[in-house]
Amino acid sequence: MIRRSNLSLVLRHLQEHGPRSRSAVAAETGLNKATVTSLVGELRARGLIREIGPQHAGSVGRPGLALALDGAGVGALGLEINVDYIAAFATDLAGRVLVDRRVGFDAMGCEPEASLDELARVARDAIAELHMLGVRVAGITVAVPGLIDGTNGVVHVAPNLGWYGVPVAERLWEVAPGVPVTVANDANLAALAEFTNGVAAGSADMVYLTGEVGVGGGIIAGGRLLGGADGFAGEVGHVMVDSSGERCGCGRIGCWETKVGLAALVRMVTPDHAYGVRDGIVRDPEERLSEIERRLAVGDPQVDHALAEVGRWLGRGSATLVRLFNPRVIVVGGFFARLEGHILPRAQAELARLGVTGSVARCTFVASDLGFGAASRGAAGVVVDRVLANPTTVEIPPTTLSTLA
Amino acid sequence: MIRRSNLSLVLRHLQEHGPRSRSAVAAETGLNKATVTSLVGELRARGLIREIGPQHAGSVGRPGLALALDGAGVGALGLEINVDYIAAFATDLAGRVLVDRRVGFDAMGCEPEASLDELARVARDAIAELHMLGVRVAGITVAVPGLIDGTNGVVHVAPNLGWYGVPVAERLWEVAPGVPVTVANDANLAALAEFTNGVAAGSADMVYLTGEVGVGGGIIAGGRLLGGADGFAGEVGHVMVDSSGERCGCGRIGCWETKVGLAALVRMVTPDHAYGVRDGIVRDPEERLSEIERRLAVGDPQVDHALAEVGRWLGRGSATLVRLFNPRVIVVGGFFARLEGHILPRAQAELARLGVTGSVARCTFVASDLGFGAASRGAAGVVVDRVLANPTTVEIPPTTLSTLA
Repeated sequence: MIRRSNLSLVLRHLQEHGPRSRSAVAAETGLNKATVTSLVGELRARGLIREIGPQHAGSVGRPGLALALDGAGVGALGLEINVDYIAAFATDLAGRVLVDRRVGFDAMGCEPEASLDELARVARDAIAELHMLGVRVAGITVAVPGLIDGTNGVVHVAPNLGWYGVPVAERLWEVAPGVPVTVANDANLAALAEFTNGVAAGSADMVYLTGEVGVGGGIIAGGRLLGGADGFAGEVGHVMVDSSGERCGCGRIGCWETKVGLAALVRMVTPDHAYGVRDGIVRDPEERLSEIERRLAVGDPQVDHALAEVGRWLGRGSATLVRLFNPRVIVVGGFFARLEGHILPRAQAELARLGVTGSVARCTFVASDLGFGAASRGAAGVVVDRVLANPTTVEIPPTTLSTLA
Repeated sequence: MIRRSNLSLVLRHLQEHGPRSRSAVAAETGLNKATVTSLVGELRARGLIREIGPQHAGSVGRPGLALALDGAGVGALGLEINVDYIAAFATDLAGRVLVDRRVGFDAMGCEPEASLDELARVARDAIAELHMLGVRVAGITVAVPGLIDGTNGVVHVAPNLGWYGVPVAERLWEVAPGVPVTVANDANLAALAEFTNGVAAGSADMVYLTGEVGVGGGIIAGGRLLGGADGFAGEVGHVMVDSSGERCGCGRIGCWETKVGLAALVRMVTPDHAYGVRDGIVRDPEERLSEIERRLAVGDPQVDHALAEVGRWLGRGSATLVRLFNPRVIVVGGFFARLEGHILPRAQAELARLGVTGSVARCTFVASDLGFGAASRGAAGVVVDRVLANPTTVEIPPTTLSTLA
C-alpha cells in the first residue's frame, strides 16, 4: 500500500514538475534515494517513465540521466454512448491524442442489447487501432447519460436511452479481457474534461451544464468532481424550479428540464408538436437543432422568443446552483453552447437580477468549446488518473519480464 | 515547503495510527530515517509530539521509545456569535476539551461594535483560562451566521445579526496579538463538527441543516467541507422552493427560509403576529420555542399542523439537495433537532414521495445531538486541522529555544 502510493508520488511528481534526476526526485519528495531507485526501476519496467538526457543540473558535477513521464505505450480509452451517437477518444499517458471519433447511431431507436453490440464494435475498432500503434489499453471508461452503479458498471437508469439496469461494463469485459472497465455519468465526465482541457480549465469551483434532450450537470468543487454517496450527485435536470409548472417525464412537477431541455425548446418553437416530441423524447435532435438554426438565421421571432425563455430559465435555475456551490464559472455544453449568443446573455441577466450575494455577481456563464467529445475525453482522463494513482494497474509486459529475469 | 508538508505527514501519521517508533514512522511513510529524526526533533521542540515508552515492538530486539501526538500545551479556540448567545469551545491538539461555554447575549438588539466588544470579552476570558492551564492558543476561529470574506475575516453580510461589512478578525487580533484568527460561516463549521463528532460522524457525504431564525446549511462532500470559490457555498436558506410563495426578507420570492425558518413557524402558530415576528426577524427565539413546546405538550392542533407543514417543506427542499449532493444522511440542528419527533418523520415521508432515484431512498434525516455547541466545536476543529497541516504555525517556546542552544 505504501509502495503503491510512493510509485504514484514519483509518477505524479514527474508529471507535474517535468523531467529531473533521481536525486532531485529524492530531495523534493523526501523519499530516500534507494527507495527512489527501486520505485523508478518498477515504473520503467511498466513503461511509465523513461530516461532522457544526459542533462546538466548545474555548472558543477557530472551530467546525469533525467527521468521523464513516458507512457507512450500505455493507452487510455474513453467511450460515450448518447442518444444519437457513439464517441471514442483515446490518449497515451502523456496526453497525446490517438483516437478521436464520433459514429452516428440511433440508440434511442434500438434495444439496449443492440446498442451494446454497437458500443462493443466501436471499442474493438479503437483497441485494434491502438494495438497497431503499439499501445496497450490500460483501462476503459464509458460515459452514459444516466445514473450508474459505479461498483459494477450497471446503468441504473438512463431515461433518454430507455435503459433500466443495463450491464455495460460486463459487455466490454468480453471485448477487452483483463482491462479495467468503469462506467460513469456523461455530464460528470464532461465536467472533468472541462476542468482539465476546457475554456475554464483549472477553475477549482465550476458547474458544467449540458443542454441535450435532457439537461445534465457535473460539479467541480475544490478541484474535484463531486460524486456523492452513490456517484449520483449533480442531477440538475430534475431540480424543481417551477412549483406551478408542467409535469416532467419523471412524473414530478416543474423540473428544470421541462424549462430548458431540448424537448422544451422544440415544443416552444413548434406548438403543434409536429416535430416529434412525445413524453419528453425528441426524435432526431440533430435535425431539430438544424431547423432551429435555419429559422434563427431568417429572424423567426417565435424561435427568438423561445430561446429567450430558455435563457431566462437557465439563469433562474442556475441561481440555486450558485447559492449551493458558489462556482466562479458555469460552463455550458450541448445546444446551450451551440446557440450561446441567444441563450447566455439572457441567462446572465436573470442570474444578476436574482443575485444578492457577491458570489452571484462573480459567476459567469461561458460556452464550452469541446463539442461532442467532452464526455469521452473526460472518460479517457479518468483512466489516466487511475494509472497515475495506482501505477501497478499497468502490467509489466512479458518481454520486459524476461529481460529483467 | 517540502519540509513543512513532511512535518505534517509525520504528525498526521501519529494522529491516525497512534504511538509508534521512529523506525516504524520511517518505514510506513517512506521517509528516510535521518529525515524522520530531524522532523521529530522539530515537532518535539514545538510541543506537538512527545516520547513515551519504552515499548516492545515485537519479541526480539531492544525496546525503543515510541512517539505520540502531544499538543497538551497547544490550544485551539472556537468562538460563535449568534442571534442570542456567544459560545466558546477550546481543546488541546489531542482533542481534550478545555473550555465549553455559552453566554446569553442579545446580539440582535445591539450595535455591531457592542457585540464585538462582548465577543472580545468572552475570547479574553477563555484565553486567560487556557493560560492558567499552561496552554498557549495556536489559533482562533469565529463562527458567524452569514457570508464571510475568508481572506480578511470581514463579515460581508449576516442578516439576522444586522451586520454588513463587520471586521471581526481585526477586533480579535487586538485581544490575541500574533495568534492567527479566521472567521467562517456557522453552519459550515457545525457541519465539520458533525463530520468529526456528531451522530453521523465519518459520513463522507452529508448535508447539515440548522433551523434557526434563518436556515443555514453546510455540505460535506467526499469527506471535505464544500466551500465554493468564495467560501459562500451551502447557502440553502435562499434556494427557491415555491415560485408562487411569499416574499422573503432578502427581497426574492419563495426562499426555503420562508417555509421552514423559525420566523415562518412562529407566524404559522400565531397568525395575528402577536409574538414579535417582523420582516423575518424573531425577537427572543428561545422564548418562542419554549412557548411552542408548551403548546405541543397540551396537544395544540395549530402547532401540530404548523410543524407538519415545516416538515413537509423540509423534505421538499431537501429533495433538491439530495439530487445535487447525493448525501447518505441529512443531519439537522437548531429547532429542527429540538422538535425532531414532530418534523423529521414528515420530512422523510415527503422526501420519499418525491424520490425517484436510489439515492433518495438511501438518504436519512437524523437529529444532531451536539446542541448549541456545534459551530464553536467545529471552529476549534478548524484550528487543530490547521496546526496538523502546517505545524510551523506553532511557535517554539523561548524556554525550549534556550535549551536547544
